[in-house]
Amino acid sequence: MPRVAILIGSISDEATITPCADVLKDLEIPYVFTVSSAHRTPERTEALVEELEARGVEVFICAAGMAAHLAGAVAARTTKPVIGIPVSNPALGGMDALLSTVQMPPGFPVATVALDKAGARNAAWLAAQILGIADPVLRQRLADARETFKTDIQKAGDELMRRHKARC
Amino acid sequence: MPRVAILIGSISDEATITPCADVLKDLEIPYVFTVSSAHRTPERTEALVEELEARGVEVFICAAGMAAHLAGAVAARTTKPVIGIPVSNPALGGMDALLSTVQMPPGFPVATVALDKAGARNAAWLAAQILGIADPVLRQRLADARETFKTDIQKAGDELMRRHKARC
Amino acid sequence: MPRVAILIGSISDEATITPCADVLKDLEIPYVFTVSSAHRTPERTEALVEELEARGVEVFICAAGMAAHLAGAVAARTTKPVIGIPVSNPALGGMDALLSTVQMPPGFPVATVALDKAGARNAAWLAAQILGIADPVLRQRLADARETFKTDIQKAGDELMRRHKARC
Amino acid sequence: MPRVAILIGSISDEATITPCADVLKDLEIPYVFTVSSAHRTPERTEALVEELEARGVEVFICAAGMAAHLAGAVAARTTKPVIGIPVSNPALGGMDALLSTVQMPPGFPVATVALDKAGARNAAWLAAQILGIADPVLRQRLADARETFKTDIQKAGDELMRRHKARC
Amino acid sequence: MPRVAILIGSISDEATITPCADVLKDLEIPYVFTVSSAHRTPERTEALVEELEARGVEVFICAAGMAAHLAGAVAARTTKPVIGIPVSNPALGGMDALLSTVQMPPGFPVATVALDKAGARNAAWLAAQILGIADPVLRQRLADARETFKTDIQKAGDELMRRHKARC
Amino acid sequence: MPRVAILIGSISDEATITPCADVLKDLEIPYVFTVSSAHRTPERTEALVEELEARGVEVFICAAGMAAHLAGAVAARTTKPVIGIPVSNPALGGMDALLSTVQMPPGFPVATVALDKAGARNAAWLAAQILGIADPVLRQRLADARETFKTDIQKAGDELMRRHKARC
Amino acid sequence: MPRVAILIGSISDEATITPCADVLKDLEIPYVFTVSSAHRTPERTEALVEELEARGVEVFICAAGMAAHLAGAVAARTTKPVIGIPVSNPALGGMDALLSTVQMPPGFPVATVALDKAGARNAAWLAAQILGIADPVLRQRLADARETFKTDIQKAGDELMRRHKARC
Amino acid sequence: MPRVAILIGSISDEATITPCADVLKDLEIPYVFTVSSAHRTPERTEALVEELEARGVEVFICAAGMAAHLAGAVAARTTKPVIGIPVSNPALGGMDALLSTVQMPPGFPVATVALDKAGARNAAWLAAQILGIADPVLRQRLADARETFKTDIQKAGDELMRRHKARC
Repeated sequence: MPRVAILIGSISDEATITPCADVLKDLEIPYVFTVSSAHRTPERTEALVEELEARGVEVFICAAGMAAHLAGAVAARTTKPVIGIPVSNPALGGMDALLSTVQMPPGFPVATVALDKAGARNAAWLAAQILGIADPVLRQRLADARETFKTDIQKAGDELMRRHKARC
Repeated sequence: MPRVAILIGSISDEATITPCADVLKDLEIPYVFTVSSAHRTPERTEALVEELEARGVEVFICAAGMAAHLAGAVAARTTKPVIGIPVSNPALGGMDALLSTVQMPPGFPVATVALDKAGARNAAWLAAQILGIADPVLRQRLADARETFKTDIQKAGDELMRRHKARC
Repeated sequence: MPRVAILIGSISDEATITPCADVLKDLEIPYVFTVSSAHRTPERTEALVEELEARGVEVFICAAGMAAHLAGAVAARTTKPVIGIPVSNPALGGMDALLSTVQMPPGFPVATVALDKAGARNAAWLAAQILGIADPVLRQRLADARETFKTDIQKAGDELMRRHKARC
Repeated sequence: MPRVAILIGSISDEATITPCADVLKDLEIPYVFTVSSAHRTPERTEALVEELEARGVEVFICAAGMAAHLAGAVAARTTKPVIGIPVSNPALGGMDALLSTVQMPPGFPVATVALDKAGARNAAWLAAQILGIADPVLRQRLADARETFKTDIQKAGDELMRRHKARC
Repeated sequence: MPRVAILIGSISDEATITPCADVLKDLEIPYVFTVSSAHRTPERTEALVEELEARGVEVFICAAGMAAHLAGAVAARTTKPVIGIPVSNPALGGMDALLSTVQMPPGFPVATVALDKAGARNAAWLAAQILGIADPVLRQRLADARETFKTDIQKAGDELMRRHKARC
Repeated sequence: MPRVAILIGSISDEATITPCADVLKDLEIPYVFTVSSAHRTPERTEALVEELEARGVEVFICAAGMAAHLAGAVAARTTKPVIGIPVSNPALGGMDALLSTVQMPPGFPVATVALDKAGARNAAWLAAQILGIADPVLRQRLADARETFKTDIQKAGDELMRRHKARC
Repeated sequence: MPRVAILIGSISDEATITPCADVLKDLEIPYVFTVSSAHRTPERTEALVEELEARGVEVFICAAGMAAHLAGAVAARTTKPVIGIPVSNPALGGMDALLSTVQMPPGFPVATVALDKAGARNAAWLAAQILGIADPVLRQRLADARETFKTDIQKAGDELMRRHKARC
Repeated sequence: MPRVAILIGSISDEATITPCADVLKDLEIPYVFTVSSAHRTPERTEALVEELEARGVEVFICAAGMAAHLAGAVAARTTKPVIGIPVSNPALGGMDALLSTVQMPPGFPVATVALDKAGARNAAWLAAQILGIADPVLRQRLADARETFKTDIQKAGDELMRRHKARC
């Protein structure tokens, strides 16, 4: 039974958003990952939200570029939390997707994360934090992951310091 | 029977968009002017589009601010032309509404005009141009309006020139 | 007899704007596609507008980059609807072309669509929607195209969901 | 026992963020509202996060302007979800606060909402949606609030339509 | 016989651009100051350029806001130097006018100066520098004006230093 | 004997930059505060740098708006640290001054601080930190000031928490 | 005897600015092309301005990137017209160079042209227009060049139209 | 004993920031270069600041991208001067890192330099200028480096001038 649904507005965003699925998989959070467009398939989007909620989805993650309306369209149809990942394209540098995602009117928040792959990963981390409120096992996994981040940086930092000490 | 529908995402945009209604009225194009929100009333928006099309509406004009999705949501539900007016607010200067309106994906264009009151008027002029393709009376009104623009500028220009000639 | 004219400000924009011609061709809308510049050939632009209108053109599509004035220059010479496609270049990311195209003064709207290829396609879709108001055959083609969009997304979405189900 | 903590980086943001507290109060979600700065009081921020988590806080809401680091600093110290409200100031129009809040590195998401008062309200709605996952009473309150939004728009829309019908 | 022509796209820009006329007057450079719009009166603009050149105008100064095409339209019709003053409005902060003015294609430069009143004054100074190449009297006036700038700053600087010395 | 020199490009920036002088005064760091312009008085700027360095100035603080070149011009003439305060104006929101100040070429850094009054204060704090490296008394004053920041926030935070506790 | 001086702030801008020299050469306007930096060689810049003016230079063209101060530094030292070419780099897309060049304070205009190569060519065209005021031979060359622009576009336009006619 | 510490937020920024270490090495200023993240290793960052200060570090240089909080986090923990280098990424062009670094609240300045490699070098030059206040040997090295800059430009300028003289 999926707890998180990842929706992308276009199959061309798959590679950018796959890291989101990867993080969820690593955290052992069951998810669905599919395509639906706010504009091209509004009925599908609406039906998916209803169906996925009925199947137990607790958090929606939506990724889109340009006039990125997908997260907003989902937020209009559910009171479950909706996370938005803005996807950039070369012209405008993603400012279009970022502002279209974050500037939602009162009552219909989209929890916006960073652009592109960094945001894809963070959408998964945020979903895990939300689900972790009531799930101590998941919370422990989050704490463990943070330890790994720390160890990695510690190691990279020590190694860099050593290389430059030799140079001085 | 209305030929044009003006939808605003929030009643707080009424004053900014009323010039759109004024231009339509001057051009004797029957219109409806109402409120519907892409996020707060998605079903109303959807129902309005269907109902208004059935009543004969040929052009939709949608105005919204921030993550301005209203025009896109209407464009997703009709193949009639949809004109979008981005509405600015002090923070971000309207860049959010402009990009959310104009950067639509292929197949679902929103004919975007300028921000705020200038755009409100231009949405009406654009609707009139669209309807004028098949309506010579309306086309004549457009041509007459342009003559007035010219006369006004000619007069203002002559008067300014005179005042400064005196000064030299 | 062409119903739509596509004007580009420079032959270097041909590849970016050809998708516009492709969509018109698919929709069986006769068009002309040529080059004229607001600055380098103002007389040609003016003469083309007059000549093309006389030959039956009902919608103008203009594409230009940088201080993109072509759509505005055409809009100044006709009361037919004018659609503007902003073309980006690496520096400034197309913000120059977008703002030069969309921020038109009252009375002279340019129906602005997205930047670059997405906008090129949407200019054709918008022209088709405008012409479709009085043309039920064309309107049916638009409706059919939307069905194709839906089927494509449905298929891509199902396929993506399946691939990730296997992974969970 | 508070379920949500609202932290503002400076007492001068109180008026902008009070609507967040108002929405939480209306939804009967107990909260604390206090001041702490990422830069001026890093130890206080750190201690507050620990203490508030111990007291049962499940969601953190952080509001700050300029190089808005408060939400990020809190996110670095907890695995509970952190919501960020960017606060604008006249120069730069809030772009500084928005980008400082949303562009977090992988592993440390900040759920960013709109700028200023709209964002303040949405931070509360988002917190309620997060808490509502496991709380059917709260979820019902969210559903009821949406009904009120709809009724308000319906009424405003009908009234606007009527006024303009009289005018046509 | 005027040597400089100041054209504004709308009479509403008169107050912003009058400082341009004031500087020309102080420098005893004869000018005309009038209104013409690239879009609303393209024929008037074209005719004015021809007529003013025939009357001896050597430099054109054009001021406009939004999709500021006036300077470009004039540049397309003359090989005399054209100076452009972008005029800001609250939304977008004048970025629209600046980019529409400066980003001209090769062969049709617009000598762009700062936004608004600072630019209005500088357009006049730039025109004077251009005319000064062949006019030693005018060049002397420019040199004298610079002396005044220096004296003013020297005085203001000394006075400020004194006030703060007292304070230390 | 002044240790810090504050230069403003125009007397109109005095009110914005006076908080810089106030912080230096509070920290008992002797300073001079005067006006000099990179463009209007390049010789004065050059002479001041030389003269002030000779009188013992160890840090330069330069504030300017628009194409803010003053800090850069000073940096070109001294190897003492130069701090730049960008000053905003309504159009462009200070982005012009910020980028003109910070984007210096290698070898000629300008230590850029925040826009306007916040930056004015921070320029003084930064100068104090620089001078504090070799001055334990000054370093103690900086540490004391930080304690005051903490106490103020603690008090404001406690008071806000109390007011809202009463409300819950 | 050179009539135009082209200064670049860094030898790394040579390739971008060479088209400026090419246009001057084609128009048979004698020029010098050299490197000087506002920050790295302020004395050289100052000396060059004086020396080049003495040798008969009538127009200065300055190109620089980032905090592009070169044009401003030259403008501070001469009352001859100064043309500025902003040079972009990948980060910030040239907005830094554009704003640093164009936003000059009253009395010290920089005639700013487009970014990069388009601007490089236009700086030469603008210099030619300025020199052409008093030089009918040069003015004729400018008029001839415009005829070539027109013929090229006419040809490209006809050819494009033909290719697409075949396709319809 | 290191006098300068370079901290990068992620090992992926090493190549961009190495020029900073290179300049310090050339100036014979002992430094440490390591990795620490404001978000991923807040305790490490805090401990490093304390430890490095104890070991004699007088200036901190911090480089980070996106919501670049590292410099701010260090500034919150020390009264030594902190220099910030914003690191760009393709989307948003580094505007996020620049604004997150420079817009610090009063009392906690970050001396911000240019983006990326230019900024990396300038951070080192600025650190040297700060340390040079009390170190005449270092000041002499700075003066010598400036002479090299001048000679290089002089040579490049002469060579460019010669090449183009041949061409005229």
